[in-house]
Amino acid sequence: MAYQYPEALNRLVRELASLPGVGQKAAQRLAFHLLGKERAGVVTLARSIVDAHDAVHPCPRCGNYTDQPLCPVCTDPRRDHSQLCLVEGVADLISMERSGSYQGLYHVLGGVISPMDGVGPEQLALHSLEKRLREEPVKELIMATNPTAEGEVTAQYLAKRLRREGLRITRLAHGMPVGGSLAFVDEATLDLAMSGRRDL
Amino acid sequence: MAYQYPEALNRLVRELASLPGVGQKAAQRLAFHLLGKERAGVVTLARSIVDAHDAVHPCPRCGNYTDQPLCPVCTDPRRDHSQLCLVEGVADLISMERSGSYQGLYHVLGGVISPMDGVGPEQLALHSLEKRLREEPVKELIMATNPTAEGEVTAQYLAKRLRREGLRITRLAHGMPVGGSLAFVDEATLDLAMSGRRDL
Repeated sequence: MAYQYPEALNRLVRELASLPGVGQKAAQRLAFHLLGKERAGVVTLARSIVDAHDAVHPCPRCGNYTDQPLCPVCTDPRRDHSQLCLVEGVADLISMERSGSYQGLYHVLGGVISPMDGVGPEQLALHSLEKRLREEPVKELIMATNPTAEGEVTAQYLAKRLRREGLRITRLAHGMPVGGSLAFVDEATLDLAMSGRRDL
Repeated sequence: MAYQYPEALNRLVRELASLPGVGQKAAQRLAFHLLGKERAGVVTLARSIVDAHDAVHPCPRCGNYTDQPLCPVCTDPRRDHSQLCLVEGVADLISMERSGSYQGLYHVLGGVISPMDGVGPEQLALHSLEKRLREEPVKELIMATNPTAEGEVTAQYLAKRLRREGLRITRLAHGMPVGGSLAFVDEATLDLAMSGRRDL
């Protein structure tokens, strides 16, 4: 006989368990934590969820999240508008921004080609990308999809589809992660690190 | 230079990251998931948080969560009111209920004695427990605090403090978990499993 939570608690646990990466046990722990908080605290959390949804939307040009008509990357005049970095999602864009290693613009694809999951090119933000390539002074397209099978296929597909005169298409380098260990890195990475070795 | 989320997204990530077991990366993933949902979905989640907090409270007798004046365990006339099982938290009570192995009542301590964390006996629900021992026909007190150092100390302390004529005080058995492996179980458990061995 399964133990029944009070109905309102049951609904909360079910809602929390539907979040990505939150299992049944974690949902219960979160729910109990929330029940133990001051009411003002849970109201603040609840409000922040709806407020963020209301205030934030994808940048209509690149797909980054913003509360403005265009995102801060797209409107920054100091950024290099001749470079466009293609990423799978906003989380990737933010990682790149945090690394501080890139000063161009982005285009968020919204996923990768994955026939297994029923995602084809038409599910990605390609029309808007092709429009940007026609209208903006893009000289380099940097494929920054993740180094997974789907990410590679997507990069290859896009390179073929978007290649044109005067447009350089590049891919992020593969190799040893900094701080990594030869003993623990996977063979495919080691293989690419070796074949891509550089003179010192 | 740290990347700045839009302010409303920043608040949401901060709120989510303050939840137990949710780190910065998980908070961002959850926030992005919520931004990608329909508005009705996030309103439902937000409402379920506040609704649960408003509807559910600890049972004034035992500490279990309930939306009624007393919890369903306390008001169930078929349960054995002569047994009282002491647990650290409501999650423990629910595990016990799910196992279906117990038909008595509970008392939620609300923690364990832990001098390191500044938790002494006065922070536990002991006044209400002693009141119950005076007013209810309790014949057995089952110490079901967790088998941790703090749980053991708490069980020992309570046994000493609450011991009286006609009251049986017991402790959950220690031993091999079902499905466990001798090769992987820790030494302390194996030691207790051996010293507590029973005739077949």
